[in-house]
Amino acid sequence: MSMLKGKRAVITDSSAFMGPAIGARFLREDAVVIADDRDLTQDGACEALIHEAGHVDILIVNLADPAEALPVQDISDARWHQAFDRLVHPMHALVRAVSPQMLERGAGKIIVMGSASALRAIPRQGAYSAARGAQVSYVRAVGVELAPRGIQLNLVAQNWVDNPTYFSREMQAHPRWEALVKSQVPAGRLGTGEEDAAFVAFLAGDESGFFAGQAFPFAGGWAT
Amino acid sequence: MSMLKGKRAVITDSSAFMGPAIGARFLREDAVVIADDRDLTQDGACEALIHEAGHVDILIVNLADPAEALPVQDISDARWHQAFDRLVHPMHALVRAVSPQMLERGAGKIIVMGSASALRAIPRQGAYSAARGAQVSYVRAVGVELAPRGIQLNLVAQNWVDNPTYFSREMQAHPRWEALVKSQVPAGRLGTGEEDAAFVAFLAGDESGFFAGQAFPFAGGWAT
Amino acid sequence: MSMLKGKRAVITDSSAFMGPAIGARFLREDAVVIADDRDLTQDGACEALIHEAGHVDILIVNLADPAEALPVQDISDARWHQAFDRLVHPMHALVRAVSPQMLERGAGKIIVMGSASALRAIPRQGAYSAARGAQVSYVRAVGVELAPRGIQLNLVAQNWVDNPTYFSREMQAHPRWEALVKSQVPAGRLGTGEEDAAFVAFLAGDESGFFAGQAFPFAGGWAT
Amino acid sequence: MSMLKGKRAVITDSSAFMGPAIGARFLREDAVVIADDRDLTQDGACEALIHEAGHVDILIVNLADPAEALPVQDISDARWHQAFDRLVHPMHALVRAVSPQMLERGAGKIIVMGSASALRAIPRQGAYSAARGAQVSYVRAVGVELAPRGIQLNLVAQNWVDNPTYFSREMQAHPRWEALVKSQVPAGRLGTGEEDAAFVAFLAGDESGFFAGQAFPFAGGWAT
Repeated sequence: MSMLKGKRAVITDSSAFMGPAIGARFLREDAVVIADDRDLTQDGACEALIHEAGHVDILIVNLADPAEALPVQDISDARWHQAFDRLVHPMHALVRAVSPQMLERGAGKIIVMGSASALRAIPRQGAYSAARGAQVSYVRAVGVELAPRGIQLNLVAQNWVDNPTYFSREMQAHPRWEALVKSQVPAGRLGTGEEDAAFVAFLAGDESGFFAGQAFPFAGGWAT
Repeated sequence: MSMLKGKRAVITDSSAFMGPAIGARFLREDAVVIADDRDLTQDGACEALIHEAGHVDILIVNLADPAEALPVQDISDARWHQAFDRLVHPMHALVRAVSPQMLERGAGKIIVMGSASALRAIPRQGAYSAARGAQVSYVRAVGVELAPRGIQLNLVAQNWVDNPTYFSREMQAHPRWEALVKSQVPAGRLGTGEEDAAFVAFLAGDESGFFAGQAFPFAGGWAT
Repeated sequence: MSMLKGKRAVITDSSAFMGPAIGARFLREDAVVIADDRDLTQDGACEALIHEAGHVDILIVNLADPAEALPVQDISDARWHQAFDRLVHPMHALVRAVSPQMLERGAGKIIVMGSASALRAIPRQGAYSAARGAQVSYVRAVGVELAPRGIQLNLVAQNWVDNPTYFSREMQAHPRWEALVKSQVPAGRLGTGEEDAAFVAFLAGDESGFFAGQAFPFAGGWAT
Repeated sequence: MSMLKGKRAVITDSSAFMGPAIGARFLREDAVVIADDRDLTQDGACEALIHEAGHVDILIVNLADPAEALPVQDISDARWHQAFDRLVHPMHALVRAVSPQMLERGAGKIIVMGSASALRAIPRQGAYSAARGAQVSYVRAVGVELAPRGIQLNLVAQNWVDNPTYFSREMQAHPRWEALVKSQVPAGRLGTGEEDAAFVAFLAGDESGFFAGQAFPFAGGWAT
């Protein structure tokens, strides 16, 4: 039997970052996938999405912000705020919007697709790292808050996972790409979207009720 | 299709700690379960077990040492060494014995059933915490060492999970038990052996190849 | 000889949070203290402060936002943004403004007065925890970025430290206050502002050049 | 006035690892230094040392075991046990021996000179990492246990610090040494023994009473 059969799962930014891989996997697990692509930086967008989705068993907070490397002196206010506008503020708005129905039912899964850059330093990624760090500490506090009410909120702290938003075909075609990956990632390769989605499916399923408020490194040993 | 179909899995101390729950789950997943119960503190016992087991796809390092709470002044040499003799030294002997065949095949899964007491302080558990901490740092270093060779070594850092070794029926029948658990564990309950085994089955399966050297808190939010 | 003799130290929000204690200590260490109290949420305020300060050897990013406990469903956009406006955005603006002169000299100390709530869950503190988590990951990334250039950026992740902003006289006069502190803080008491300032003085001094990008728990054992 | 004036400080393995640097600093701070060099792997040696020392205000658990890099398959029982015999078992025996007098006085400082290899993976250092990890979790549990009684037990998790035991003159004279250090250590250099000892002096002094059970990374940003 499929792990997610009949579960209603919202995936945000569904054509970016891990959206496509998670969507494909969830469909294979017989979930009802509500793949949404609206711009969540707009006022009220998160609330509208949850309202339109109706009953939500699983919320995948999949938010991306391809991050140009910049010395800290050169991170403008615009660039700084973009990271928080895309990665942090919608996360809270989505959790706030979906949690009442989950609390009423005493059940629900929320998974934030985060980044291992919150856990290990990447120089010239001050804005991105800060935003991803906000996600981790939010998930820890709110995850522990919601756990007694039957809701599991957790985060995948990933890096070096193949996805169209962060690791373009061009980048991966670079002659030194493979050597770079081997030097940085103990597993010696990029993780696949399928592996990532398999773990997310596990976390979204009925057997993951004893994880709460956690950030799971998913980075081939780059962060542990 | 079953996740572990035909995989040969050794489970040590198989009638203690998480052995029974993992064994039952692995059988349901169609694994070939080699449940072993010999005393691994004896010289050569770990090597003999692996030798007798032959081909090992999955090694579950399930080691327990029910730990009496003692002020640090009262932890005798005997009590101290017992923790390391039972939890730490056999872990290395097992990994050392099984890794050559896994390296040869470029594949293998090793999962250490550890403790969240390595990550969060429990007063009067100095010996136990130290031994569990040795496991975490060993898994981190050796997990990163083995990852490029196709072997995934990880650890489940659990606490507050129902099992016959640490949470007896008597303990759980105590009138204040439920209140204690609710006050300590955000999830408000013990984890079940089935939940724990489900996660171990996931880690032992083919879709977990991008985890390496990690300690996964599994404690209902008590440790994150 | 005094540890900070002649060093020019900017302390932001100087009459709130740890400002008074740090200011007093730095004066005793013969630093030149530039205690500033302007509202750093205003456009350009951080840049103006650094510009007016001139030569800055030490920047104490002391930012506070007394945080009302609220269930995640009740954290409004206004409350959410206030945490980031007060704690996170000025941090970056200050570091961005002061780092060029420090890079030019190849020397400088920046210390962020952060919170252990970034490291350990506090239910109903979703906004505050997220903002404090952003600080931790920012300091890690930017601290590692600046370390090769001779600048040490670190963070004090404190909790249960006496200060006028978070632990009012009324709170501490409550009949159950002492019992609460003893039950929560292994040290059995609040930390003093003097202890906190002593550590900050150490980090600001010449002997702390081998710390970089770190968050130091300072919470009497509540977070480790 | 000197920070450690008149304090009686035991430094173990005093001519190895950080012993010389800490001893020199403590003398400059007017401590009464009891520098001891006996072999602490012998039965009763730890107890005898503490007994002979009499009144001990500060105990520096300075234990070293220069660690040859070995693949996990090649770490023999002898090599494995050596790490625990030198680094782990004497630590507990020392803490057990000194804590009764400190408990009686309700005051005392114990500082374990540990390793950042407990926190970040170093391949082919399975034995050493495990032993250093045991130290970290022991200090966390016992540090929280002792904190309410007025004793501060903490650990310095160092790496890349100049000392005669781990970084020989030959190693540092190697033509590629400087490039290696710059590529591995964000600070771009080895830490000095003096910097390390300055921090230890701070932890041993009267102003560090609000740290408990912690492992402080001290590694120029290599571990954070």
